[in-house]
Amino acid sequence: MGRLTVVGFGPGGYEDMTNRAVEAIEEADVVIGYTTYVELLKRVFPEKEYAATPMMQEVKRCEMAVEMAEQYDRIAIVSSGDSGIYGMAGIVMEVAAKKQAKIDIEVVPGITAASAAAAILGAPLMHDFSVISLSDLMTPIDLIMRRIECAGMSDMIVCLYNPKSKKRTAYVEQAADILMRYRRNDTPVGVVRHAGREEQSAYLTTLGELKDAPLDMFCVVLIGNSATYIMDGKMITPRGYEKKYE
Amino acid sequence: MGRLTVVGFGPGGYEDMTNRAVEAIEEADVVIGYTTYVELLKRVFPEKEYAATPMMQEVKRCEMAVEMAEQYDRIAIVSSGDSGIYGMAGIVMEVAAKKQAKIDIEVVPGITAASAAAAILGAPLMHDFSVISLSDLMTPIDLIMRRIECAGMSDMIVCLYNPKSKKRTAYVEQAADILMRYRRNDTPVGVVRHAGREEQSAYLTTLGELKDAPLDMFCVVLIGNSATYIMDGKMITPRGYEKKYE
Repeated sequence: MGRLTVVGFGPGGYEDMTNRAVEAIEEADVVIGYTTYVELLKRVFPEKEYAATPMMQEVKRCEMAVEMAEQYDRIAIVSSGDSGIYGMAGIVMEVAAKKQAKIDIEVVPGITAASAAAAILGAPLMHDFSVISLSDLMTPIDLIMRRIECAGMSDMIVCLYNPKSKKRTAYVEQAADILMRYRRNDTPVGVVRHAGREEQSAYLTTLGELKDAPLDMFCVVLIGNSATYIMDGKMITPRGYEKKYE
Repeated sequence: MGRLTVVGFGPGGYEDMTNRAVEAIEEADVVIGYTTYVELLKRVFPEKEYAATPMMQEVKRCEMAVEMAEQYDRIAIVSSGDSGIYGMAGIVMEVAAKKQAKIDIEVVPGITAASAAAAILGAPLMHDFSVISLSDLMTPIDLIMRRIECAGMSDMIVCLYNPKSKKRTAYVEQAADILMRYRRNDTPVGVVRHAGREEQSAYLTTLGELKDAPLDMFCVVLIGNSATYIMDGKMITPRGYEKKYE
């Protein structure tokens, strides 16, 4: 019985991988992933055997991984960030169950984009937060916007994944408009692109300016709560509403 | 000018630490942390020099770290999970600014409890979620419950940090009651205690039964959305409301 390890390798570089992720990749007979992720991993583990599949073929990729795990000893299926947050872990389990595959499945968590981006921006996630994807591929846009509204209503910090793509350009402005019903226009917003990769860049803006900010699918957007502020270029959310700790 | 690294070392064991966290700890002249965290790290790095301070003295600990970073080359202040999520990163920056300390501060993200628990339970975090702490030490309980209500209203998965302490025993039942206005009583709930540590344990229950579940401050509670289900003992949230990927 083979073991299929669903590995989240974090932002992309070796330094932000966990020891368990490194071990799972090193011990795998074959490492399976979306082409872009395989290219990232080749920089770190050039000697491995890889099987790359194009984007948007998640189910096919998982089927391949499950089939290979039935034949080989150890297979790793990889994604950036945390494989357990908007990742492959769910589909892998669904596919394995449907096939009644006799394999062991292990999920190895990784640093998700919200964590990686927060560390770069300062300390914006010191309080309750919502992680919301603006991709409407699998979720009705009305439900996504209701989540934005609810996060606004209850003053949660908001982490937007997939804020913009070539086809989806208006949602981030719509989200900002909703949040401005509850938060000031000058609420700090941090944007990190390619968090934790060689190409990393980051900037600060405000909720009012977010609609004009340069964004794409490689960005994560962190929108502060009503107490978030900027100090020496760092975005900080204090831990308490009453500063009891002082 | 010394460097102060705010290190999130993940659940506790070596295998879930990132390479950057290991390096920051190994290179530090002194590692500072809450006594329990220092004990965890001593299992992995027995040779290091540590400075342990009791719980509830976060500001004092941060002041000590900032002062030491002004004298030494490299100091690490550590917490479990992600130092950027309900962690020390914010206080460290506030203390350093107040002291006008001439030090470099770097935040090293770690695997947060939500990620660690999700990997153990299956794949519950495949969709939008809210991370909410039930500790009312720094946050008015009405605001916490409004956040629970909002997460319920918009069908977000809910991760509860600090679900129960000796003094706070009723909040988790109150939270479950609120969520049951929006979600079925048999909504799957996963509880992980000491996620990723030697003492780790986990169990599945339901929203209706949550009030009777054994909980303490070492637990993380993951409450599914309306689509979450249990399969072969694993808690899975499908990625889409419409299963377009099939």
